[in-house]
Amino acid sequence: MSGLWQDKLRKIDPYVPGEQAQIPDLVKLNANENPYPPSPRVAEVFRTFAVDGLRLYPNANATRLKTALAAHHGVSPTQVFVGNGSDDVLALTFQAFFCSEQPVLFPDITYSFYPVWCSLFRTPYETVPLNAQFRINPRDYDRPSGGVLLPNPNAPTGIAENRAFLEDILAHNQDCVVIIDEAYVDFGAWSCVPLLEKYDNLLIVQTFSKSRSLAGLRIGVALGSETLIRTLEAVKNSYNSYTMDALTIEAGAASVEDDSYFRATCRKVMDTRERCAREFEALGFSVCPSSANFLFVTHPTARAKDIFLAMRARNLFIRYFDLPRIDNYLRITVGTDDEMDKLLTALREYLAQANV
Amino acid sequence: MSGLWQDKLRKIDPYVPGEQAQIPDLVKLNANENPYPPSPRVAEVFRTFAVDGLRLYPNANATRLKTALAAHHGVSPTQVFVGNGSDDVLALTFQAFFCSEQPVLFPDITYSFYPVWCSLFRTPYETVPLNAQFRINPRDYDRPSGGVLLPNPNAPTGIAENRAFLEDILAHNQDCVVIIDEAYVDFGAWSCVPLLEKYDNLLIVQTFSKSRSLAGLRIGVALGSETLIRTLEAVKNSYNSYTMDALTIEAGAASVEDDSYFRATCRKVMDTRERCAREFEALGFSVCPSSANFLFVTHPTARAKDIFLAMRARNLFIRYFDLPRIDNYLRITVGTDDEMDKLLTALREYLAQANV
Repeated sequence: MSGLWQDKLRKIDPYVPGEQAQIPDLVKLNANENPYPPSPRVAEVFRTFAVDGLRLYPNANATRLKTALAAHHGVSPTQVFVGNGSDDVLALTFQAFFCSEQPVLFPDITYSFYPVWCSLFRTPYETVPLNAQFRINPRDYDRPSGGVLLPNPNAPTGIAENRAFLEDILAHNQDCVVIIDEAYVDFGAWSCVPLLEKYDNLLIVQTFSKSRSLAGLRIGVALGSETLIRTLEAVKNSYNSYTMDALTIEAGAASVEDDSYFRATCRKVMDTRERCAREFEALGFSVCPSSANFLFVTHPTARAKDIFLAMRARNLFIRYFDLPRIDNYLRITVGTDDEMDKLLTALREYLAQANV
Repeated sequence: MSGLWQDKLRKIDPYVPGEQAQIPDLVKLNANENPYPPSPRVAEVFRTFAVDGLRLYPNANATRLKTALAAHHGVSPTQVFVGNGSDDVLALTFQAFFCSEQPVLFPDITYSFYPVWCSLFRTPYETVPLNAQFRINPRDYDRPSGGVLLPNPNAPTGIAENRAFLEDILAHNQDCVVIIDEAYVDFGAWSCVPLLEKYDNLLIVQTFSKSRSLAGLRIGVALGSETLIRTLEAVKNSYNSYTMDALTIEAGAASVEDDSYFRATCRKVMDTRERCAREFEALGFSVCPSSANFLFVTHPTARAKDIFLAMRARNLFIRYFDLPRIDNYLRITVGTDDEMDKLLTALREYLAQANV
């Protein structure tokens, strides 16, 4: 009889994140991390934190962090949800909002965790092909669905759409929850936050991992109508009452309150991105128009996978996806100017020697 | 057409945790928190932590914490899983191991989050009544099931069973995963860790929230065979790649490495518990034999709910459950000797005045 227990285990293929190599002198441009440290106010929270208080459970509502975020976005704290990274928030939204028999819709080229959550929660879904320029056709979403999930800017392309474009999709999708995943929005894209006043079925997801340099601390955010946030809280409190630890609540709030540091850091990343986009073009690359902290590029003669491996051999880590339609592209995180210059020099040398 | 989106939302009744009141001079004995601070080594981690490194994602495998736990328990790091509190770990185990059509079995009186997870994940389940003394009858579990879930010590009774008793249940349940929830095991109960060598279908869940005074930091643990841990990792990596933040990994490891502080703190709580059990008995209470950091008590004449409300009015918070079979019981967390003396004095006064 022994062994039957193994038949009761879940079989699933998990998401595979970007490699976290432990190599000295590594130039790490493969996980869309911010090259600049978090606000100095975060370090101050660590130094002054009342560690003895950790014997108590944290505030289950993470009120201090929600209040700071509500003030930042000009919404009510009851319109704010926080979770253990935006992946936790998105996993909860799948359970909270995609509860019909109709398929959820998202682009064929997008964050590769979306189909994994569909598999985990057995959520029916259909992918909608982007056009040849990796753009969304809003009319493809004019049909009944279990929900719409769009990243803006999209990943791994970095392409963002404007207000009129996004509101058009929302206006045509009033019978399901529409989630806009704004993980990269702070690097120059238009945020849907102003649309919250008008659309009760709109949920916006953001993260502290990119623009706030806090990937290591795990903070994700959702903004939406009170109905959506209340539903999300009920599901979260049916999963884990205390997802946010006491330090994270304080450090996250300190980050939000330092708006000038936040803006200056995003500006530096955007400036480097624009300069490097021109430099990649000078090397012959085609560069997707990016509103994110990464560039999605392809070369007319040098193969993406070969470039990826050649750079990896020089401890320059960038991201290559062996996936349909994008298997000749590279996703390059925007690092410091110095890191980008190292990569550009190596690319210049490689392209000269490779005789491509 | 507007409003149809609301039909696609999840309807669910969440778990309700113990009240986290913000009152000065509160004696808080309602959430089984530890009255003593975490190890001084945890504070040291906060003071010396390299905050700038938070711009990077944490180690997705939480290797440093797993290695410390493996050494502590005498198992391989591949037999260790960590999560965002033991509620996160338990939520993942439901998704990973309870994947058949047969009902999962757990006691009728136990941690009230279990049926909430069953509801969230639509896991079939049956509760098995404890006997009149709140003890498990092992023979009740001698039948095909989707899984067995037993807390040891049980909550809210505090009653623990011994090695022979637990191994008997395991030996009779070789066709499903058996989970022993050891949230309170460090306060004098026998841990099932030595049984891991013999039973590949045994999963043990522990927490840093009670015996390690780190409720505020959110660390849960699972120990089991490599097959079980691999399955749990696959489900976790299909839900959220990075559940453990960088600070928590380091602080958790520092706590595990300070074994003498850990043992001394548990010993203090147990000493206070034993003294207070006798004091409660002297006041006329019946006290369940506790191997946890709380006492489950009932009085022959004074009603539990009345006592609860009278103590609450004096800023002495204890826990009352308005649930079948236990609605005349109180769960009292073991605090410092000083806190317990305040409660005992108030109880003595109340019982004298109440004329019960």
